[in-house]
Amino acid sequence: PDARYVELARQRQQVLTKPPGSLGRLEQAAITLAGLQANDRPALDRIHISVFAGDHGVCDEGISAFPQAVTAQMIANFASGGAAISVMAKELGAWLEVINLGTVEPAAALSGVLDRTIAPATANLAQTDAMTPSQLEAALSHGDEAADRARRAGAQLFIGGDMGIGNTTSAAALACALLGRDPDELVGPGTGLDARGVSHKSDVVRRAIGRIGNTREPLDILQALGGFEIAALTGAILGCAARGIPVLVDGFIVSAAALMAVHQQPRAREWLLFAHQSAEPGHKTLLQALEAEPLLELGMRLGEGSGAAVAVPLLRAACALHNGMATFEAAGVSNRSEGEAS
Amino acid sequence: PDARYVELARQRQQVLTKPPGSLGRLEQAAITLAGLQANDRPALDRIHISVFAGDHGVCDEGISAFPQAVTAQMIANFASGGAAISVMAKELGAWLEVINLGTVEPAAALSGVLDRTIAPATANLAQTDAMTPSQLEAALSHGDEAADRARRAGAQLFIGGDMGIGNTTSAAALACALLGRDPDELVGPGTGLDARGVSHKSDVVRRAIGRIGNTREPLDILQALGGFEIAALTGAILGCAARGIPVLVDGFIVSAAALMAVHQQPRAREWLLFAHQSAEPGHKTLLQALEAEPLLELGMRLGEGSGAAVAVPLLRAACALHNGMATFEAAGVSNRSEGEAS
Repeated sequence: PDARYVELARQRQQVLTKPPGSLGRLEQAAITLAGLQANDRPALDRIHISVFAGDHGVCDEGISAFPQAVTAQMIANFASGGAAISVMAKELGAWLEVINLGTVEPAAALSGVLDRTIAPATANLAQTDAMTPSQLEAALSHGDEAADRARRAGAQLFIGGDMGIGNTTSAAALACALLGRDPDELVGPGTGLDARGVSHKSDVVRRAIGRIGNTREPLDILQALGGFEIAALTGAILGCAARGIPVLVDGFIVSAAALMAVHQQPRAREWLLFAHQSAEPGHKTLLQALEAEPLLELGMRLGEGSGAAVAVPLLRAACALHNGMATFEAAGVSNRSEGEAS
Repeated sequence: PDARYVELARQRQQVLTKPPGSLGRLEQAAITLAGLQANDRPALDRIHISVFAGDHGVCDEGISAFPQAVTAQMIANFASGGAAISVMAKELGAWLEVINLGTVEPAAALSGVLDRTIAPATANLAQTDAMTPSQLEAALSHGDEAADRARRAGAQLFIGGDMGIGNTTSAAALACALLGRDPDELVGPGTGLDARGVSHKSDVVRRAIGRIGNTREPLDILQALGGFEIAALTGAILGCAARGIPVLVDGFIVSAAALMAVHQQPRAREWLLFAHQSAEPGHKTLLQALEAEPLLELGMRLGEGSGAAVAVPLLRAACALHNGMATFEAAGVSNRSEGEAS
């Protein structure tokens, strides 16, 4: 972020034809984007969305309301335009790519899907490390490559999305290990578990974090408890931060990856914008740990990057207002009467 | 609203490729719009924005941080495209019209501005009724005519906006009288009063509601305490409800007009959608009285309809997802495994 453009944008906000501060958080959003884009007229015309998909061995523990075959089926749905993120990408005029990191049910070769299969699924994190060191390295690298594609496309904003039945279990386990929290604080219903299912899922996470003991190195935790898509999202976030691309963080899964990225590289935090607070109860804790105040709270809990996509028009509005509004001087509008009775 | 289309839309939401409920409030927004538009594929391509402007005699009491000349100056700014609502209307591809109901400083004749001058300003509501009966009738009628223009243009959504230095004083007074609340609960800083200014403004409102005593008929309260633009907004909301046009309610001023409309005609309530909770502290109380849960809370407090305009893309996203997502059956995606361990 470039402090000069932050200051220029802040000054501009003070002289636009509105009471100072009256655009609320849209003012700060424009100022932040100005700094991140090193441009006092920030813009979000080119948005790069990468959805990472992968299956989870921990599904063997019966922790999801949906069958594991859905991961591969949804990859096809992303490609054919029927998924929520596909609809939103079209609506936004954003670039959408899907990165298949490995599914239990084979996914067909499809236009718009990059085959980066690492394995059919991670190992069952409740029993053993989810990934081997080389699998972790591959997943991080596939994420970094997405950030590089975004850079080459001139993306002004990156959105990472996730697909992987079972991935709220992995994300909760990662967050518990990184933050030293109890599973009951971070495990929730995911796609739709009932109270008994949540309790079982919490037990599974407790076994997993018990298994890894005092492991504190972020990448060791990621290898032990992560998913291919969560590791790739971590790599993508680190890659965007390193390349100076702002990232709009989606919900519970992407926030867990963002937390991992920030533990690995604290300076990555300043490239992160936060879209929404999800209905997944543990998301609030992740956002607090990231000192994040998301723009929206709509009760969404779909993943795929969908919540981030829904928030894009708010950032675009912030840019349009910042760039397009007249100043008091240009419009011949009187500013507030400082010093007079108010 | 047509219950058949509500039910069709509800059924469709259950079979789209997502966990049921996972789009949160966007699901209900699509279902509500389906009922209001009597169309199970709701759309928001044609949006009609009417900004009503008028001056307030109560400015004599020194209740605003901005000089009264700003009302007329902002009318010119709306017309030339420099105001927040002008920028947002362009961004949304929405129709924008400005209705001038009377300003102390003369407003030039401008393209996009309809001259419906009633008087240079209302009378000082702290001392006497703000409007005569015929002025109130004219203002309500100018609002109804805006609703009729929206209908003739085939608008799928109506947004009313306000401009009038001093109008948070009028809106707070109306809300106090309608709800039987103390001014301290509903008076706030408006465009930027300090604590002393707010306290003085609260005293002015207290005098006004004391002056009208036990007046309980909504239109009598509106005549005594309203502004031309607030009365016109009331007429526009009633006119939209009568013509079956959904209204997206903006902030404190428009919510006061909506409260007035609903007191006058309770069935108008079902045509109202709520965009945002403003930073003006009393707005929360108005929203509660209207049993409204707005989509956004961004700390905006600008008026003009700007908060409603910023929320439009959320409703458009709700429609796009509702209309564009694939069903489980069409996409060949497995639905959740009912009855299995979850």
